[in-house]
Formats: sequence, C-alpha cells, structure tokens
Amino acid sequence: MNILELAAAAKAASVRLAAAKAELKNKALAEIAAGLKAHSAQIISANKDDLTDAAKNNVAAPLQKRLRFDEGKIADVVAGIESLTKLDDPVGKTISATELDKGLELYKVSCPIGVIGVIFESRPDALVQISTLCLKSGNAVLLKGGSEAAATNRILARVIAEASEKAGLPKGWIQLLETRQDVVQMLKLDEYIDLIVPRGSNEFVRYIMNNTNIPVLGHADGICHVYVDGAADLDMAVNIVVDSKCQYVAVCNAAETLLVDERIAKDFLPKIKAAFEAHNVEIRGCERTLAIIEAKPAGDADWSTEYLDNIISIKVVAGLDEAIDHINRYGSNHTDAIVTGDRDKACRFMDLVDSAGVFWNCSTRFSDGYRYGLGAEVGISTNKLHARGPVGLEGLVLYKYRLFGTGQVVADYAGKNAKKKFSHRKIDG
Amino acid sequence: MNILELAAAAKAASVRLAAAKAELKNKALAEIAAGLKAHSAQIISANKDDLTDAAKNNVAAPLQKRLRFDEGKIADVVAGIESLTKLDDPVGKTISATELDKGLELYKVSCPIGVIGVIFESRPDALVQISTLCLKSGNAVLLKGGSEAAATNRILARVIAEASEKAGLPKGWIQLLETRQDVVQMLKLDEYIDLIVPRGSNEFVRYIMNNTNIPVLGHADGICHVYVDGAADLDMAVNIVVDSKCQYVAVCNAAETLLVDERIAKDFLPKIKAAFEAHNVEIRGCERTLAIIEAKPAGDADWSTEYLDNIISIKVVAGLDEAIDHINRYGSNHTDAIVTGDRDKACRFMDLVDSAGVFWNCSTRFSDGYRYGLGAEVGISTNKLHARGPVGLEGLVLYKYRLFGTGQVVADYAGKNAKKKFSHRKIDG
Repeated sequence: MNILELAAAAKAASVRLAAAKAELKNKALAEIAAGLKAHSAQIISANKDDLTDAAKNNVAAPLQKRLRFDEGKIADVVAGIESLTKLDDPVGKTISATELDKGLELYKVSCPIGVIGVIFESRPDALVQISTLCLKSGNAVLLKGGSEAAATNRILARVIAEASEKAGLPKGWIQLLETRQDVVQMLKLDEYIDLIVPRGSNEFVRYIMNNTNIPVLGHADGICHVYVDGAADLDMAVNIVVDSKCQYVAVCNAAETLLVDERIAKDFLPKIKAAFEAHNVEIRGCERTLAIIEAKPAGDADWSTEYLDNIISIKVVAGLDEAIDHINRYGSNHTDAIVTGDRDKACRFMDLVDSAGVFWNCSTRFSDGYRYGLGAEVGISTNKLHARGPVGLEGLVLYKYRLFGTGQVVADYAGKNAKKKFSHRKIDG
Repeated sequence: MNILELAAAAKAASVRLAAAKAELKNKALAEIAAGLKAHSAQIISANKDDLTDAAKNNVAAPLQKRLRFDEGKIADVVAGIESLTKLDDPVGKTISATELDKGLELYKVSCPIGVIGVIFESRPDALVQISTLCLKSGNAVLLKGGSEAAATNRILARVIAEASEKAGLPKGWIQLLETRQDVVQMLKLDEYIDLIVPRGSNEFVRYIMNNTNIPVLGHADGICHVYVDGAADLDMAVNIVVDSKCQYVAVCNAAETLLVDERIAKDFLPKIKAAFEAHNVEIRGCERTLAIIEAKPAGDADWSTEYLDNIISIKVVAGLDEAIDHINRYGSNHTDAIVTGDRDKACRFMDLVDSAGVFWNCSTRFSDGYRYGLGAEVGISTNKLHARGPVGLEGLVLYKYRLFGTGQVVADYAGKNAKKKFSHRKIDG
C-alpha cells in the first residue's frame, strides 16, 4: 500500500475504533501485552539486527543504548500496558448535559480525535507506548520511528496489529511508515489525518510545522528558565537551579537561562558558580553577571538558544517584572520556575508567565507526563490550543455534541411569538 | 500604528488581561454597557453614514438590513452583555489537582488562549458580542468587521476600548483592523496571535486556512445531512427535514442533503416532495429517487455542495450504514441528524458519524451557541482539535499547569534507589 492507502485505511478504521467500548479496548491491550511476551524471542532477534547495523554504521553510543530492546525493556512496556489498562477510559465521558427543552437533551461527550500521525525517535519502547495510548483513547495511528530501529519497529507494529485485531479491533487502525519520504507524503494528507505529533530536534519539528496544513501538537524549542527572586532561600535555589540545568541536559525541560534578582545577585552568583563548576557547566553571563563572577559573556542570541548541553546563560534582572518580561519574550512557553519565599510574588509569576508549566520552588525537570501522574505521554506541547504541557490520554480526545430530540424543530422556538421556549436547565451527572 | 504594532500591543496587554480577576472583567463589561448606552446617539449617527454609503453603493437589501444598528439593537447588545456578566468566569478553574509528593502539588488551571484575531461579517452587533466574549475569557482581540460597517465598527471599538480601560483593563487589549490588507498582514503574525476565527464564505475561510501558520478555528463548509431511517415516524421526518432545510437556508447548519432509507422511500419521498414544493425548494435526486418522484437529477458534485439556497439533494440508501458512510465521506463534520424510532440505530449513528453535532429526531438548525445555552458564540468549529461545534466562552480558554513545590528536585526521584517516591494522589476539589 502507498501512504495514501495506509492513511485511508486508518481513517476508515478510526470511525469504528471511535465507537469501541472500554472493555474491547482493554481486551485488545491485554492481547497486545500477551503477544509481546509470546514473541519476545523474535522481537529481541530483530532488535539484534538493528543493533548490529547501528554498530556497523558507527551510530553514537547513547543512541545505540536507547535502541536496545531486551527482556527487561519488554517487561517494562508490558507493565506500562497494564497500567494503561487500569486508567479510566477517556472516551464517552459526559462533559456537560443540558435540557434545552422538554424531550430535547444536549450531551457534550468526549470522543477520539480520529487519525494521529506520530513521528518519534529511535527508542522501540516509544512505538509501544504511543500506539497503546492511541488505542486506549480510540484513535487510529500512523507511526514513523527512527530508521535505526526499523527491524524492531516492524515486528512490534505487526505484533500489536495482529493481537488487537484478534481481540476484535478494526483492521488497519495502526500503520507503520518506514521512510522520510513516507513522512513527506503523510504531511499532505489533511483529508485523512487529524493531528501530527512530531518528536525530535527543533529543526525537525519546525520543518513539520511549516510544511503541513494538519494541526501539529508538540514543541520546537524548550527554552526553560529559573528565576531566583530576592526573597529566595539561596540554598534551595542552588539545588533547584542545578537540578533544572544538570539532572539531564539533553531534554526539553532542562533550564537554559537563569535569571537572578539584583537584590541577591552578589550573594547568589558565587554560590551557583561553584555548583556549576562542580558539574562542568559553562556559564555565559550578562554584563551585570560578569561584574560579580568570572564567566564568558552572553550575546543576545544566548537568550534564545536551547543549548541541550552543559551550558547556561545568566542574566541579572531588576526584579520579578523584568524576569516575567524576559521569559515571555525569549522563552518557548514550555516550563519556567520561580524560587522565592514570597507567595504573592510566586502567584504573580504563575499568573503572568505564559507557559505550559509555571513552577514555584521546584525544578523545571518535573514537567513530564510520568512525573505529573498522567501515565505515559505522547509528547509535550507548547501550543496555545487544545493541549498544553505533557499530553497523555486526555489530550488525545475531543468531544461531540449529541442532541436527543423527540421531533423538535427550530421554527417553534423562533421569533417574538414563539410557540416554545428554551429551558437551558443543567442536567446533573 | 501598523498591524505589527497593533498585534504587539495586543500581545503585551493579553498577559495582563490573562491575570485579571472576574470582578474586574465584570466591572469592565458594566462600563462597556454603560458606554454603549451613553454614546447611542453617536453610534446611530455613524451607522447612518454606513447605511447611506451602502445605499449609494447598491449593497444588497438583506445586507443593508443586517447593517442597521439602532436603539433596539443597542438594547439587544446591552442585554447580551448583562447575560455574559452573569456567566461563570471561565478562567482560573481548577480542572484537576494532584499531590505529586508531600509539599509538591500540581494544579491544572484554565487560562485564556492569549490573542485572538476574528474576522466577521457586516453586523455591527457581532463586534460587540465577539469583543465582550474575548474580554470575559481574558483574551486580547484583533477585530476585522465587514467594510460596509466601517464607521459603526470604529465608534463601537472606541467606546469598548475606552470604557474597559476606564474600568482598569490593560490598554491595547482590543484592536480594530480596517482593510483586507490588514488581514493579510495579520495572518503572518504567528509570533503575536494565537488563534484566528474567520467567519464568512467557504472560499474566504479556506483562503485563511491555507494562508497562515496560526491555528484557525472555524468551518469552511456546512454540508449537513438528515437521514430518514426505515423506522422513522414519517410525519415527524417531514417536519424535521423541512425545518432543517427551510427554516433559514443561508446558514451553515441548514441541511443540504437528505438521505432516505430504501425501506420507506416509496412512502416518504412523495410526502417530502409535496412539502418542499410548498416551500419552493428544488429537489435534485439520485437515480433511485427519480424512479419514485419527479425531480432534477443529482450529479456527483451535488453531494459535496453547500447550496445555502432553496435546493436539496436526495439520495436513497440501503440503510443506516450506507447513510453513515455517505455522511463521513461527503459531509463537513458539522451537524447531521437521524430520524428514527429505533434507539439502537440512533446511538449507532451518533457513535459513528464523525461530526461536531450528531442529532436524533430533531432539526440540524439547533446547532447554535444560543440554542445550546452557551450564551453567545464566537463561531462554529468543524476542527478535530480544541473546540468543536458552537464555540462559546469555554472554547476560548486553555489551561496551564501550576506546580507548587517546597524545594523539590527531580534527582531525588530518579533511578532505582531513589530517595523519594511520587504519591500521585488526587486532591479533591
């Protein structure tokens, strides 16, 4: 099948999948878990082929590590599926209900989005997590994983398709794309695909956003800030800043810029410099920073740069309002934290900073679906529409209005001398 | 100011407006209502200029009628503002709350989207409704109304800006665009504008959707269907079909295609033909329709055409599943209705038809924010993301995650021998 045919098949399946009851979807999840265990030898063997190719092609060591899919990883994804099964079904929930008139009742009910295209990195466990999240939320899915994991992804997608169809799900709800050219084709299929979730580098996500009419959920940059306020506990601030920057530098919720209130700059900057030195973090400071500690000078571009590395930019600011303005100007609406002992200032920061996550006295690194308790996440969104922050099951549903009538027509409610009147009475859940 | 400056001013204001409390916003709404009443002579005089120009330019009579903004219309919009004031504030609602660990609490809280660009038709009351909906939901707004209403819109926007600023809202939250060239400029400003709501013709909405990276909320087509099932009460079906088609033909929720179950086609088609003849509706039928009643033949293009006129296409189908497939293939995901006495069939229809509104035994014309009891609507969306159907206050908000910590860092929760564990305990509202 070509990509158009794959997408059309997914679209056709999505309509039936949307109507699948929770029991059926959970049964399919159980079959998938069983299928993965039953095929573990074949999966591991396919993964060995990928690993051999990766070694041959001198793929970077950390990527080779992420590529590995062994007994332990299979047990992890199976455990993930079991947790997912226990979560509430996100579909079919009544969001609100209103009696418009006697015998005319309106229900706003959650439903799947439809067909979702997800492009993800070279971790084979991502394929299992994403496809089962889509299944649980009733969405058909087109998957494109990293090419290094091609053999592993192929068998995983086949096992998931076969197991779920055996349980009674509509054939075709899960489709695997294999090449970059497939992705280029997919971006044109706005008639069949309702949402694209791209995971990957800034450039890649921006390319996707600029080359499709399909709505995109995700984030290009993750330029996160920590603002250390004049009323901060400085030891707490050091801990939070170090964790935000250093706990895992290569991820979107790591801090890239530290903003320091001028009131405590003289005390705080030497402390944080010592801590960063211990973690081999390079500091790039504004002029006022450099007047207090020795560091490289920060250029204007530094405030807009996502280093994803052991580098941090530091700016001394006149106080809370300058910090907020800086974040709203240079940030990426991802996650930003304030460290302060002053609750009013914290609330003002959380009100005025326009980001998916606004944190008080804790690390930016908490911005994550697992840590939030959402279960797995399909991605992190910095969109200003639909879903923001880590996107789990709830971000994969929309709603439809179901209106139950008994013969009503609008003509009876129209005009000044209308025969009938709307009651608009809330129906209690 | 040029459009970039207007948009930047709106963006700056939006941050402050997002933090405005309900009382302040309601005070601003009261000032606006008072301002409109106090300036009614000037508003009506400006409107007379618009009406004179419209007459001079031979603007169509119905449009001239919609353009009129007199004492009665001012009283209507003031009443609308008073109803809006009474509605719950959609901002600051806790959607969910979770204790991640002791002293680390996560709140998912509703917040405004930011800056919204709305392009609307030549009814001056639309300007008041849209801007006050945006205000109540904490969003800054760029407005472009029909050029025929230019003078009226100018004074309305000025009164609303002055009254709301007098009440304490940030200057610049409401901006008026005047020309088509302004709109073209606006579509490029994705850095400042978070959402575009275009109201107008299919071609216009499609132009907007294809010429901006800003998310668009709206609908191009409104191809709505009524399916009359074999188990329908035929008199009820005639009423519902006639209302869906004829109650107001020029609107998006009017029916364009009637689908008739072959089981009752012989009985139903003559009845509906007589009813349509009484309403001067032209019928375009499929071959099976033409075998039963006399009518024009329908071509393939008819199934995808939004007539917005006294024309309906009719197709005889083999039953429920063909009706569902036809609607999902040719429809516009707007509003579709089934007439049947069979509850199971109705539920299957409402499950499988992928539209914003799925109706049982009532007219498609009910698909409307006022009739749904949402208050005013900013538009009707056929999007598969964020908001669907009539979009009122709730469709104009998003959420942010507020995480309240007491010094927590992720390092303490990481790895197999982590010092701390997440509790992920729901916090009850």
